[in-house]
Amino acid sequence: MRMYDLIEKKKTGKVLSSEEIRWMVLSYTKGEIPDYQMSAMTMAICFQGLNEKETLDLTLAMRDSGDCMDLSGIQGIKADKHSTGGVGDKTSLALAPIIAALGIPMAKMAGRGLGHTGGTIDKLECFPGFTTALSEESFIENVNTIKIAIAGQTANLAPADKKLYALRDVTATVDQMSLIASSIMSKKLACGSDVIVLDVKTGSGAFMKKREDAKALAEAMVRIGIGAGKKTSAIITDMDQPLGNAVGNSIEVIEAIEALSGRGPEDFMEVVYALGSKILVLSGAARQEPEARQMMQECIACGAAKQKLAEFVKAQGGDASYVFDTDKFEKADETFLVCATQDGYVQSIEAKAIGTACMTLGGGRETKDDVIDPAVGIYLVKKRGDFVQKGEPVAYIYANSKEKGDAAVWQVLNAYSFGEKEVESVPIVKEIIDGVI
Amino acid sequence: MRMYDLIEKKKTGKVLSSEEIRWMVLSYTKGEIPDYQMSAMTMAICFQGLNEKETLDLTLAMRDSGDCMDLSGIQGIKADKHSTGGVGDKTSLALAPIIAALGIPMAKMAGRGLGHTGGTIDKLECFPGFTTALSEESFIENVNTIKIAIAGQTANLAPADKKLYALRDVTATVDQMSLIASSIMSKKLACGSDVIVLDVKTGSGAFMKKREDAKALAEAMVRIGIGAGKKTSAIITDMDQPLGNAVGNSIEVIEAIEALSGRGPEDFMEVVYALGSKILVLSGAARQEPEARQMMQECIACGAAKQKLAEFVKAQGGDASYVFDTDKFEKADETFLVCATQDGYVQSIEAKAIGTACMTLGGGRETKDDVIDPAVGIYLVKKRGDFVQKGEPVAYIYANSKEKGDAAVWQVLNAYSFGEKEVESVPIVKEIIDGVI
Repeated sequence: MRMYDLIEKKKTGKVLSSEEIRWMVLSYTKGEIPDYQMSAMTMAICFQGLNEKETLDLTLAMRDSGDCMDLSGIQGIKADKHSTGGVGDKTSLALAPIIAALGIPMAKMAGRGLGHTGGTIDKLECFPGFTTALSEESFIENVNTIKIAIAGQTANLAPADKKLYALRDVTATVDQMSLIASSIMSKKLACGSDVIVLDVKTGSGAFMKKREDAKALAEAMVRIGIGAGKKTSAIITDMDQPLGNAVGNSIEVIEAIEALSGRGPEDFMEVVYALGSKILVLSGAARQEPEARQMMQECIACGAAKQKLAEFVKAQGGDASYVFDTDKFEKADETFLVCATQDGYVQSIEAKAIGTACMTLGGGRETKDDVIDPAVGIYLVKKRGDFVQKGEPVAYIYANSKEKGDAAVWQVLNAYSFGEKEVESVPIVKEIIDGVI
Repeated sequence: MRMYDLIEKKKTGKVLSSEEIRWMVLSYTKGEIPDYQMSAMTMAICFQGLNEKETLDLTLAMRDSGDCMDLSGIQGIKADKHSTGGVGDKTSLALAPIIAALGIPMAKMAGRGLGHTGGTIDKLECFPGFTTALSEESFIENVNTIKIAIAGQTANLAPADKKLYALRDVTATVDQMSLIASSIMSKKLACGSDVIVLDVKTGSGAFMKKREDAKALAEAMVRIGIGAGKKTSAIITDMDQPLGNAVGNSIEVIEAIEALSGRGPEDFMEVVYALGSKILVLSGAARQEPEARQMMQECIACGAAKQKLAEFVKAQGGDASYVFDTDKFEKADETFLVCATQDGYVQSIEAKAIGTACMTLGGGRETKDDVIDPAVGIYLVKKRGDFVQKGEPVAYIYANSKEKGDAAVWQVLNAYSFGEKEVESVPIVKEIIDGVI
């Protein structure tokens, strides 16, 4: 097989066979196909696309390019959840303990944040002592005993995807739907869960700005999941404004704990319930979504979910007392107010700008090697549609330097737009893409 | 300027500015843009194309990436001729002496053969002692004194094109019209002539198999030439069968000498006259083509053209006595006959297969480092449309080994197809693309 012929084939709109795709992915991973041929291929794919079978083949080949988790030692139907990334997205922190408390094994791999979106691992590390560096044995043991474990991605998880993504990133070939879908799903599939629920964000703060692109991505991923024999569903959720009220690390953990205490923000809870009820139905723990929702609500009301979070934090070396006394979390030195510049309704809060403001404060990473400051963040008092009076605070900024705090005030203020027009409320969950097999 | 942005721009169908193209070409030549970004760009160009201005900008930037010949020391309007390459194409060997004998300076760069097409330099080296390794000074002096010099391409002629072509060759991005046109024209323009006449071959033995592709390439090249301020024309000629009767090195030189003696094959002479009359009109030596043709015919009839060839061979160190006694050229050891397998008309002679047979004999190069055997070759006695009787010889094969000769017999026989149907004659010059400025 020659890579030249495969490039030519794709360039002229023909379909690549399973063998061709597998050979290409594995040879590229081993360094036997040079970058300049692979980048010509990815550019050809940007124009000619990949069909459903090619996309699945690509995903499976990338999955198999490195280590795959063997979760066969875990009893029951294992569930995983993935978000395409947003601002203020602390869903996993609340969702995973609820699902685990309801008896469904949550065996999750998570990542760190980069750019304007935060990462689950960074947030969990706000609990002093918490670690995601688990051996495969303790990961499996934890899931078996307390139904939940969250580990960092191993270095050798889907290395083909890592290498290909780095290449796409410098050759303007990132935005191809099949390539995006297979990149995400190759890692998810390598993690070995039986049920995969996907949260595809759309809006100004999301990777997918347009609703139709989010839908196309969600559908592509669900098709891959099903093709790979997994129970897979996706929901499309709004990321035009940040999710919930807190954006930062500690303050997002606190908001998640509040959620498990029955005091979560409405938009945030809706996302948690939508994703959670999908998991419960797909894993067979509930027959229908209303039943699943009720199970989750009861699990929060009786304190079991919060208890599960504490158990989970403790099992991974963290100080669980923080779950019951959130004042213990490290605080930033200074608080700044962001005040409304006019009477009126909040028309919009540009999510990406809020994420960038959090990065300015030191709460996110511009480059992989940046160290994040867990204490800083932005608390959005007013959200889209809320009425404000001129001078009234719309957000609080927690900063550890006056200079950064001042800069963030301007960024956050610019992210808000005010107007006299009442704002129609938008459902947070825009669409559900189901794909039970 | 970032290459990423330029790739993105072209990918989304936008037009690159002159500055962007020049920066890209020069940075790539210097090694400051990696191959994997350039191959993504060329693939994007395959889908989005380059407009006329972009194509010209690319050509000029590639021209300027290395040395440009300074022909200002040569008096008069300098002419150059280029062929896209074919089998049996010894046109330059006859054309250049005729034009020079008519007083138009022919300052030509030529190449060696690779694959199934031969190269002018290989043929000229059949004259013992002949060299194309001229200094710039003697090149210019020769053109000034005897109106003709043919040099090998310097190593640093359009290095951007050399690097880019090598990359396109391994990434399935060779067949894009603007890229092909700018590749050829960047080298032609770097050679510095005022008049450029192009012979674009079409048919089974040509790079451009289809007539419409040949036309598109011819038009693109003529536009570039005019855009660069050169008088440029192109003719599209048939390469479905080899040109003339001789395919090989010595035997092509002999056929060219025959042509200058008034005994050239009809199809070959037609190409020589068509290209030559273009040069004469564009350079102002003749007002119209019939006049130009007559000038050329007289120049052959009076022996001036043949004399010019001898002068030229001598000036570049070759033994000019060969011009007047072609028996002196080295002969192959054995002659094989290829005979018709049935009565009928020659329906076609696949040019590429004849070129490949010549390579089998050792008369062409499979790789750059192969040494060619000047004595071997194929003489086509019968050409398309000729009537043959079963057993009658259609071609002679001159070989230096029985094994190679036998193999070539089969290849040549397979290249011929015979049939009962009379074959309509096809004009050798299919179309003329004019572009005087």
